[in-house]
Amino acid sequence: MTAAFAFAVHATDGAARSGEIATPHGPVRTPAFMPVGTQATVKGVLPEAVRATGADIVLGNTYHLMLRPGAERLARLGGLHAFMNWPHAILTDSGGFQVMSLATLRKIDADGVTFRSHLDGSSHRLTPERAVEIQTVLGADIAMQLDECVRLPAERDDIARAMHLSLAWAERSKRAFEGAPPGRALFAIVQGGDDPALREQSACALVDMDFQGYAIGGLAVGEPQAVMLRMLEMVVPLLPAERPRYLMGVGTPDDILQAVARGIDMFDCVLPTRNGRHGLAFTRSGPVNLKNARHADDPRPLDPESVCAAARDYSRAYLHHLVKANEMLGAVLLSTINLGYYQELMAAMRNAIAAGRFADFAESTTARWRAGDRSPA
Amino acid sequence: MTAAFAFAVHATDGAARSGEIATPHGPVRTPAFMPVGTQATVKGVLPEAVRATGADIVLGNTYHLMLRPGAERLARLGGLHAFMNWPHAILTDSGGFQVMSLATLRKIDADGVTFRSHLDGSSHRLTPERAVEIQTVLGADIAMQLDECVRLPAERDDIARAMHLSLAWAERSKRAFEGAPPGRALFAIVQGGDDPALREQSACALVDMDFQGYAIGGLAVGEPQAVMLRMLEMVVPLLPAERPRYLMGVGTPDDILQAVARGIDMFDCVLPTRNGRHGLAFTRSGPVNLKNARHADDPRPLDPESVCAAARDYSRAYLHHLVKANEMLGAVLLSTINLGYYQELMAAMRNAIAAGRFADFAESTTARWRAGDRSPA
Repeated sequence: MTAAFAFAVHATDGAARSGEIATPHGPVRTPAFMPVGTQATVKGVLPEAVRATGADIVLGNTYHLMLRPGAERLARLGGLHAFMNWPHAILTDSGGFQVMSLATLRKIDADGVTFRSHLDGSSHRLTPERAVEIQTVLGADIAMQLDECVRLPAERDDIARAMHLSLAWAERSKRAFEGAPPGRALFAIVQGGDDPALREQSACALVDMDFQGYAIGGLAVGEPQAVMLRMLEMVVPLLPAERPRYLMGVGTPDDILQAVARGIDMFDCVLPTRNGRHGLAFTRSGPVNLKNARHADDPRPLDPESVCAAARDYSRAYLHHLVKANEMLGAVLLSTINLGYYQELMAAMRNAIAAGRFADFAESTTARWRAGDRSPA
Repeated sequence: MTAAFAFAVHATDGAARSGEIATPHGPVRTPAFMPVGTQATVKGVLPEAVRATGADIVLGNTYHLMLRPGAERLARLGGLHAFMNWPHAILTDSGGFQVMSLATLRKIDADGVTFRSHLDGSSHRLTPERAVEIQTVLGADIAMQLDECVRLPAERDDIARAMHLSLAWAERSKRAFEGAPPGRALFAIVQGGDDPALREQSACALVDMDFQGYAIGGLAVGEPQAVMLRMLEMVVPLLPAERPRYLMGVGTPDDILQAVARGIDMFDCVLPTRNGRHGLAFTRSGPVNLKNARHADDPRPLDPESVCAAARDYSRAYLHHLVKANEMLGAVLLSTINLGYYQELMAAMRNAIAAGRFADFAESTTARWRAGDRSPA
């Protein structure tokens, strides 16, 4: 345990900003990308390898962990940090999103949500208070309020109902979190779908409650990127500058670049690991599909400029072979390469912001993605 | 490239011996265990992690590699060492064993074997000369002659026919290998099933041909351990003391201990990685099934005395969780732990032989395996 939660902005460049979050498990440089460790593991990647990519913080999923191995068991085992051998910062979500997307027979009422496990059909209940309790016993450095997230497109009435419920749950979550050990933080989640008025109402009400950080939820759930960016342009100015802003579940490298340009500080997404398991690499030349036969005889590494050894020490031909042969090492290497690229992108954005050249950086980065990856003639 | 192939025995203790094989890609301490890298990867384990377990040499499979990515493609890509990012020694088998166990529609004649790929049904042919050629272009430090291996139990006539065919192929392999780059070695394979007279005939004929090393094939293919050990006791004394002896495809830790006691220097086996993928750990307290519910709340590491970080840094509860959740990291960690245990066992045997206390070591090691693994009361 090193410090209580705190956030400092070190530099701004337009709406973009770089800074640092202090947590009981070390600092988190922002803009930050959080690899997703759903079941207490970033899929296929050793914790020291996750750290070596440059990650300061990972995300854990309350829904998955409460079902298996179970929150109280995890607490008896010393909490999530010890369990997954990750001594750095951890943010846990509240479980709400997964209850909506994975659980069966879910039933929402004003007090909480009852659902059946997707693993064994057993019945469980999450309330704002229980979600906070679970995250507290897991030992999360940053906990999230329970919310209800609506998949877009959706009816305005449904979005409004979920947003108001999430506001009520935010208040209860905050009260419940008063008993948490000192130094930890609880973030609120702005909802409101693609409706500007609902987003504004949600943001302003949450800011009035005074949270230590603000997430924007309910985006990247089916809407076009332009809609997501419009919502950010609308919501971010309503949030206090001195608190971190977290865009949940986002996204592609371009999504992240565009969101940082609009003042977002934190991200999480399964794309680097999920796509890595499916043979797709993220690189400074855009996405590269290693399944493609053009790589079969290519002795070049995926990215000779990478800071990630996995991107430099193995040929495209080898990665292609591993993917085609369905070898586990292909998933391991490509997940590592993708996490490495995401962290390299975050570091480059932090440097560009600090140097006051973020717009130039964004332009040249986007141009290189668009130019794409080429095989030798 | 560091040295030409050579073998030196440094110490003997009964029939057991410790020593070192020099190869163009570095020394191999014996008795040696070779992790199996079937498709140019030790399944799920990064090459630097394989090395960190203490492996000096890995095994590559000619059959798999000739089908995918293809021998000549691999040669154009710089050979197997560069392809799989393993700069240390490599032994390749000749493909014969996998043709018999994996290929379909195989047809053996005096000249070689024609078969269809288990991947796509394409037709291929291996002759003694082609098997040597493939292993040569792959860049193997140690190549194996093409042989025919018969699964036991089998009719004596069938064993005899295969043994004689393997002898003829040994001679042709040796001639073909004369064109190989200097410094590399070709090993012969003693066949003869569980028939002492056939084993003797095979061994003596091969020794007359003068190979740089001698493998014993056709064991651990269905017969009881006692039969295998009897064959070793019979064959090993017929082999020249100054050449390495390699027991192919063996085995459990106990198989290896018993074979070292009978003068074997080299081993390969898929057990550490295959069992690791299925939730089974090899430890100094014998095999431990991490699927077992008794581990669910156990905060102890698998083996606090291990030299392998993976066996020390993760609780049994965590490994149990990963295995139950079918998480890739479970396979990665348990494969690494098992390779680490195998290498730790080999190192301990080398030390015991050098110290002249191999019998004591074997007894105490076996006693500890038999005592088994216990959970706290």
